[in-house]
Amino acid sequence: MTTSSSSNPTACVLIIGDEVLSGRTQDANLKFLAERLGQLGIPLGEARVIPDIEAKIVEALNACRKEYTYVFTTGGIGPTHDDITTACVAKAFGRKVIRHPEVEKKLRAYYGERTNEARLRMAEVPDGDGVSLIENLISVAPGYRIDNVFVLAGVPSVARAMFEAVAPTLRGGPPVYSQSIDAHVREGDIAAGLAEIQAQHTNVAVGSYPFMRLDKLGTSIVARSTDRAGIAAVIGKVEKLMRGLGADPVVGPAPV
Amino acid sequence: MTTSSSSNPTACVLIIGDEVLSGRTQDANLKFLAERLGQLGIPLGEARVIPDIEAKIVEALNACRKEYTYVFTTGGIGPTHDDITTACVAKAFGRKVIRHPEVEKKLRAYYGERTNEARLRMAEVPDGDGVSLIENLISVAPGYRIDNVFVLAGVPSVARAMFEAVAPTLRGGPPVYSQSIDAHVREGDIAAGLAEIQAQHTNVAVGSYPFMRLDKLGTSIVARSTDRAGIAAVIGKVEKLMRGLGADPVVGPAPV
Repeated sequence: MTTSSSSNPTACVLIIGDEVLSGRTQDANLKFLAERLGQLGIPLGEARVIPDIEAKIVEALNACRKEYTYVFTTGGIGPTHDDITTACVAKAFGRKVIRHPEVEKKLRAYYGERTNEARLRMAEVPDGDGVSLIENLISVAPGYRIDNVFVLAGVPSVARAMFEAVAPTLRGGPPVYSQSIDAHVREGDIAAGLAEIQAQHTNVAVGSYPFMRLDKLGTSIVARSTDRAGIAAVIGKVEKLMRGLGADPVVGPAPV
Repeated sequence: MTTSSSSNPTACVLIIGDEVLSGRTQDANLKFLAERLGQLGIPLGEARVIPDIEAKIVEALNACRKEYTYVFTTGGIGPTHDDITTACVAKAFGRKVIRHPEVEKKLRAYYGERTNEARLRMAEVPDGDGVSLIENLISVAPGYRIDNVFVLAGVPSVARAMFEAVAPTLRGGPPVYSQSIDAHVREGDIAAGLAEIQAQHTNVAVGSYPFMRLDKLGTSIVARSTDRAGIAAVIGKVEKLMRGLGADPVVGPAPV
């Protein structure tokens, strides 16, 4: 199943942090990044939640930066001992960690007499070529890009600001559009017809998601593609299929 | 950083579904599984969100079932064309897919004249030894276990019911406890002291998470370990550290 044209670049998100794996924290970055990347025509191909363990982070970075056009990491770039992302990124690229002079200057100006070694860790980036800073308009300490890896903060407001700062620099593909149609029909009753429709439109990803509303079971069908005409054709056929079962489907807004 | 004794088994969660990667859906299973597994002393070592693509699912299954004691998949076991989890699990194990006679009987009894080929797909399991059904008290169609892989539904209420059905069969380790302490201190001001405390308690994972409440920045410190005395010692030292900076920390409930 492809949900985008072959010309689309791809992305992977690495959520770094024990707090999500322990269940303490509900990740709040993946949905945002997935939506924004889709809008940019850079469909998210995979996401991994990995612990604060160097070997695991290095392994995931090296596996994903080879496989995807872009890799976005969130978390682990603060001032405390459990912020090890930059050390891991440097190791994955076989680089040393250096203190970025421009960032150190900014941090010293911002923190004044409260500047300390811990805070200056937030000026650390991998050494060498292909490293560029990602501005942080919220709390000064920047993220950075190294080759195809974008290192973002974990705090959602900061992660979002950093993503928007780099979004214009990303090479997007055709936007991936989607449209949904919901009805109080059971998945099992439309499955055969749905499979036919999918077979007729191989450039549209047809997803089927059951739901329960007011104790009534229903199904939400989502058509996703870079081809808006294809989506419209699929939604039209699914509507006909649902009405044929006596349902009164609700069609979501057309993709724009 | 280890958050559990070496005697703890480990787990990995594979969230299968384009809907999470497209940003359409906020995953609602990871936090639940992470919390429950922690309570059972089976810390979650990794989670992956993977698309409805056979090669990706097979690859993730084979990588993770070797690396972790238990693997839990969510999603992709319904009646529609995009439900391909069982085909992928069978392929990963080099097995054929068969229709389980007992499940087929249950489904036929439940659906009566609405039984069809699509619904009978929900009776499919990998062939061969080491396969056992996971009861679904909510919507009949079961999940199943094959060796160390547990195949659960994606619908949260069903996924939870299926997890609770197998929970008593899991080999847990010492429970992983946690306790938090919050204060309106900046991470950068306690980072050095925090690093010392972490170094003194290597069997406790000390996590530091900044927060903003009522426009005031603060830090939440979380101590996690199988050793409750170690957690208490860490929290006591962090409280002293925070009070030393003039803060009035709030200590979370002691782990039970």
